[in-house]
Amino acid sequence: MTQAKARAAYERLAGRFARIGTLDEAGAMLGWDASAMMPPGGAAARGDQLAVLAGLGHELLTAPDVAADLAEAEEAEDPDPWRAANLRLMRHAHTRANALPGELVEAAARANSACEKIWREARRAADFSRVLPAFTEVVRLAREEARALGAALGLSPYDALMDGYQRGIGAADVAPIFAAYEKFLAEALPRAEAVAASHPAPRRPAGPFPVAAQAALCRRLAERAGLTFDHARLDSSEHPFCGGTPSDVRITTRYDEADGLKAVFAVLHETGHALYERDLPPAFARQPVGSAAGMAAHESQSLIVEMQAVRSDAFLGWLGPELAGTFGPDPAYEPENLGRLCRWVERGFIRVDADEITYPAHVILRFRLESALIEGAFEPADLPAAWNEGMKALLGIVPPDDALGCLQDIHWYDGVFGYFPSYSLGAMAAAQLMATARRAVSGLDAALAVGDLGPLRGWLAENVHAKASLHGFNELLRTATGRPLDPAAFQAHLTERYLA
Amino acid sequence: MTQAKARAAYERLAGRFARIGTLDEAGAMLGWDASAMMPPGGAAARGDQLAVLAGLGHELLTAPDVAADLAEAEEAEDPDPWRAANLRLMRHAHTRANALPGELVEAAARANSACEKIWREARRAADFSRVLPAFTEVVRLAREEARALGAALGLSPYDALMDGYQRGIGAADVAPIFAAYEKFLAEALPRAEAVAASHPAPRRPAGPFPVAAQAALCRRLAERAGLTFDHARLDSSEHPFCGGTPSDVRITTRYDEADGLKAVFAVLHETGHALYERDLPPAFARQPVGSAAGMAAHESQSLIVEMQAVRSDAFLGWLGPELAGTFGPDPAYEPENLGRLCRWVERGFIRVDADEITYPAHVILRFRLESALIEGAFEPADLPAAWNEGMKALLGIVPPDDALGCLQDIHWYDGVFGYFPSYSLGAMAAAQLMATARRAVSGLDAALAVGDLGPLRGWLAENVHAKASLHGFNELLRTATGRPLDPAAFQAHLTERYLA
Repeated sequence: MTQAKARAAYERLAGRFARIGTLDEAGAMLGWDASAMMPPGGAAARGDQLAVLAGLGHELLTAPDVAADLAEAEEAEDPDPWRAANLRLMRHAHTRANALPGELVEAAARANSACEKIWREARRAADFSRVLPAFTEVVRLAREEARALGAALGLSPYDALMDGYQRGIGAADVAPIFAAYEKFLAEALPRAEAVAASHPAPRRPAGPFPVAAQAALCRRLAERAGLTFDHARLDSSEHPFCGGTPSDVRITTRYDEADGLKAVFAVLHETGHALYERDLPPAFARQPVGSAAGMAAHESQSLIVEMQAVRSDAFLGWLGPELAGTFGPDPAYEPENLGRLCRWVERGFIRVDADEITYPAHVILRFRLESALIEGAFEPADLPAAWNEGMKALLGIVPPDDALGCLQDIHWYDGVFGYFPSYSLGAMAAAQLMATARRAVSGLDAALAVGDLGPLRGWLAENVHAKASLHGFNELLRTATGRPLDPAAFQAHLTERYLA
Repeated sequence: MTQAKARAAYERLAGRFARIGTLDEAGAMLGWDASAMMPPGGAAARGDQLAVLAGLGHELLTAPDVAADLAEAEEAEDPDPWRAANLRLMRHAHTRANALPGELVEAAARANSACEKIWREARRAADFSRVLPAFTEVVRLAREEARALGAALGLSPYDALMDGYQRGIGAADVAPIFAAYEKFLAEALPRAEAVAASHPAPRRPAGPFPVAAQAALCRRLAERAGLTFDHARLDSSEHPFCGGTPSDVRITTRYDEADGLKAVFAVLHETGHALYERDLPPAFARQPVGSAAGMAAHESQSLIVEMQAVRSDAFLGWLGPELAGTFGPDPAYEPENLGRLCRWVERGFIRVDADEITYPAHVILRFRLESALIEGAFEPADLPAAWNEGMKALLGIVPPDDALGCLQDIHWYDGVFGYFPSYSLGAMAAAQLMATARRAVSGLDAALAVGDLGPLRGWLAENVHAKASLHGFNELLRTATGRPLDPAAFQAHLTERYLA
């Protein structure tokens, strides 16, 4: 009797979450449009549209019925692990949503959308002061949200924000991993630089790289990696991203006439995200348990494609002739040179251009700055100075202007704090998953050598994608690889690729 | 005291309608995306998204507070005519929305979206039977809606649907105008054909017409007509349309490699719609009174650009060299030939390709069929036969297949019934407005002769666009031209252009 009542309450909740998930899909599409299609004059109205959608989703999640249904559904343990996990995630979402008044959610969505537009101009002008007023408002609202969420979840304000991107992972989990990496880097970076310097400098492809040719190649490579364009689009935007919905994924990239490789790697990165979305279980579409397992998990899927598979010697041996076929013959596309180009190590200012070894340093900087910013240890106006100081300490370089410094990423200016650690947790998880996949799937590297990501994707679809949010991040890794996140695989990968 | 309470209730309603209007904007953008961008695999999810948005908008409009606020706001007459009109339109929208259960609205949105996708295939295959099951469901739900709306508004079912597109205009207003036109046509069409036959046949431009060149020209012409692309986009879709929102208008066209003129006229048509949206009063954005005055009014604005201005001898004299500059010199672009090409009269199957004289016959056919279909006088399965019979009676021709017959238009397959009369009411209103504008604005034709639509647009912005929905269709025409809709101006225009 209790069982039947609990199940009925669960089904009511599932109906409601499907509606919320559908609203989220609408918001995701409008967000994609804002970055990939929208003329600048549409920005103000779009901010309103996204704010109203966010507000309505919040109302649906916090309606009085939900608390009652949750309590009723929780009265009997559901024997189905998917439904049981879904219910736990509904409770978690409800707790998060109730911690935030609807007006705060709408105000933040509006402020973020407004600030993001100004950031685009400020970055172009390398002028932090231009975005400071809008950014100060974004930080003010983010702190308010973080405090309210932290109180409801029993977490510190910053951990409460991190929890929104990678449930169950907090600063205390990340800080020691990052401290250990900082130590590894201090030794490994000079060695990697020495190794790179001991080889002839890699030759850069000469071009020209017409945008249309790049776009056609990128599309073909995404298809080769398993993405089908009956359920996807590829467009361009200021910053590459993967948006849309599982049945209609929208990936974007940025084309540079002077560099034909950047867009290729960016598109393959976004394709990794897109494949994850495409492989999520349709039976739990729009349900919390049917979503990707968080942002670190998501990043592991983009990086296992971009960094583990595509930059492997096997795949580069296939990619070289493809590049030559598109842009014309060039000795730079010879596998050996392409390999040295991909293993190039350089202390640079821009995160998205960073090599695999220095990339975590960029993340560590952002993790330390954003946690301090949210906890109130410093103010938005002090960001440029703190940034430059941090870069100096971690990589020994100081950006000449804020476009190459604290203005380079969209995240904070769009109200996203607590996301950055996901990149490096994802990189570490990708190495761990790849090591297991190599052992589990015979012929994986042989397939890569003919440009075929099918075997890898098959293993990921079964062991990661299809699991959606049934498990948390560490449990997902444990079921797939036998261990929770263990940064050893990433350091082993770097050692093999850069220090040999 | 009553005044202040009434005003407070009005402001609450205005806030609510702003929210509903913002949701409608989100839906409009997703609708544009579905036609212009979406991969086919996204269709099912998009149908759900639009259905949920429609359902939420409906809930906001029918929430218990609204009836109370409306009653309170109506207790004192607002001295401001805009607010007073807005309140009347809110009441009207509320009556319409309350007539329809939320589940019916969602079911119809879902059925329409599903049917529209199947229609695309059915039209490609010229196979009505393929879409019949989905279409039967669309008609069933449309009839149900029409009956419910009619009961609430005291209108016949079909008039209740017409009211949704052009408030206050019903079958009894349209039928005599259309009967008179049928009579005019019976005499005018043979005469127009005789006039056309007395001239040498117009030469068709030879091409080639590369899509990229067409698109660039279309963009330039839309800009020349006054559209600025900081608040607009031009893309392609199966069927040209104008979507989006006032600050972010999205127009589309269809490019035909074999015909360089079709897209040009379609884009200028959609530009007329777009300018109307751009000029709506921002102070009443997202309010009922701040919207365009209905679909006949909207069509008058696309047709005053496309048919009255662009196809005038003055404008064609400027357009000819532009076409030659884009596609290469061709005697077909000489003004005299271009004029004869634009005045070509031919009994054809396709409405959107029809000339100005026969176009209303296509509309009359659809008006008669859709009113009979909604009133239950015949069933969806009988549509192809009824269509062919009607074409025979009106224009003396019978389409060889349903792609050229009852499958040609998206409207019915997307659940749109009662819209078609707007096209011809709009054509008639456009002629009436143009006659007045010519008298009111000195140098209007001289401006057209140098490709400048500025003076016409200025007059329309002031006398039509800025009035939004302050007046109904006939009152709008009366304040702008001194008379309600009077088809005499249209017949005079046709007589001058085709029978001279």
